[in-house]
Amino acid sequence: MSTSPIGVFDSGVGGLTVVRALRRQLPHESIIYLGDTARVPYGNRGADTVRRYALNAAHLLREQGVKALVIACNTATAYALPALQEAFALPVIGVVEPVAEEAAARSQTGHIAVIGTRGTIASGCYEQALAAYSAGAVVHPIACPLFVPLAEEGWLDGAVPEEVARTYLEPLISSQVDTLILGCTHYPLLRPTIARVLDRSMGRSVALLDSAESTARATRTMLQRSGLSAPDGQEGALRLLVTDDPRGFARTAVRFFGDGVPMADHVNIIDRFSQATT
Amino acid sequence: MSTSPIGVFDSGVGGLTVVRALRRQLPHESIIYLGDTARVPYGNRGADTVRRYALNAAHLLREQGVKALVIACNTATAYALPALQEAFALPVIGVVEPVAEEAAARSQTGHIAVIGTRGTIASGCYEQALAAYSAGAVVHPIACPLFVPLAEEGWLDGAVPEEVARTYLEPLISSQVDTLILGCTHYPLLRPTIARVLDRSMGRSVALLDSAESTARATRTMLQRSGLSAPDGQEGALRLLVTDDPRGFARTAVRFFGDGVPMADHVNIIDRFSQATT
Repeated sequence: MSTSPIGVFDSGVGGLTVVRALRRQLPHESIIYLGDTARVPYGNRGADTVRRYALNAAHLLREQGVKALVIACNTATAYALPALQEAFALPVIGVVEPVAEEAAARSQTGHIAVIGTRGTIASGCYEQALAAYSAGAVVHPIACPLFVPLAEEGWLDGAVPEEVARTYLEPLISSQVDTLILGCTHYPLLRPTIARVLDRSMGRSVALLDSAESTARATRTMLQRSGLSAPDGQEGALRLLVTDDPRGFARTAVRFFGDGVPMADHVNIIDRFSQATT
Repeated sequence: MSTSPIGVFDSGVGGLTVVRALRRQLPHESIIYLGDTARVPYGNRGADTVRRYALNAAHLLREQGVKALVIACNTATAYALPALQEAFALPVIGVVEPVAEEAAARSQTGHIAVIGTRGTIASGCYEQALAAYSAGAVVHPIACPLFVPLAEEGWLDGAVPEEVARTYLEPLISSQVDTLILGCTHYPLLRPTIARVLDRSMGRSVALLDSAESTARATRTMLQRSGLSAPDGQEGALRLLVTDDPRGFARTAVRFFGDGVPMADHVNIIDRFSQATT
């Protein structure tokens, strides 16, 4: 058992959807969340840069005494999960594998679409994860880079997001896809629009899966296996850290976390350049 | 006279429109351009973060031996021009004042619209600059944060950019605006769409001004006044530096610079946190 907090990080605000699921499923666990808002978004950046940023974030959280790390960002998971597992003597989990496992179990046709940032899609991480759970899975990956700014700006409904979704999702119309992974923590905000566009263009409903609940379940398992779960009597605390001005974060955080999101503290992140190890 | 290069920096790729104008107007000048692509975009970030990033960029360029600095980014100019002028013993110019002077001279009605990032608009920098050139100017500022991702993704025409432009520019319909400043170096790519939407909704044409040519003219004046112009016989060289993977930059650079854009070199930028002075 351990009373230490879990460290959760994301490029910005999207990872709060994972925090919300963790709070619901693991109310005894304390959480320190780091949103790297001074360098968001990660989705279009190169692999080396994303890996360096993820290592910076993990170092900062380790200095805060976390017992385990949750990478609540698909792009950072795609490019940096092995590097973090190697660099830190802590259990580290990402958002890709849990939802891939769920998708493989749910899909009847074996045709699974994955939408994500350019980085997540280019990495092939979902193809790899899905192949491990379902040998015959056919993956339809689509990069949807404009969904992040739409979600951040709160343009969730109406003509613009519908037309953007229609354009991105067009390749799926004639497919046998029955399950779609929202492979970016921003995308659940656009879920109603994405569902409507798919329903209309495909004439049948597609199951939309996001990473939040499955990652929270996987985190519970990881803590139990490592003997690091919090004692049942503990009331989990939540602390938010951001690398840019906390006021901008507060404006968007409520959309991802719901009411009761605590005020974030500002923290400077040190960009070490070299891939430092523990 | 000085054979040293001019240092030009931007949050990413947009500042290449300024470089293109500099190359045309000042062919004898060598230029080192720094695109902070590992931390782009600046437009939604807090003032302190943008100021720190601008100081980081200026330090890097000074270490390259530049004789003068051009801030080819509206948000960085808005938040960091005085800090840079104070911190460095070099002539420093931004993109806000030159185009503001041009707009004040051109407008007949005195009603001038400014569109830009959230940071640029919140700073009030254009109101300040326009007031200096035209005491009675009425400024209509509009933040258009989705224009940057649209331009970066190359969604320049069609239903989505038209609808986004229509939504942002709606407050101008009943105004007396006859001049609009494209107050972000990304926006010139959307100029045809913006012009079409304004023509259609206002029933008359509005002059669209961008910063590139006026900033290049102001740079020439600044160099002449400081006695730092390049000798006429010199053939100006151009070197590009970026803080993220140069391959991603090359893909979008051609849209802003046109053909003949040289391959960029990668450089690590040091984030000093403190506002170091010379």
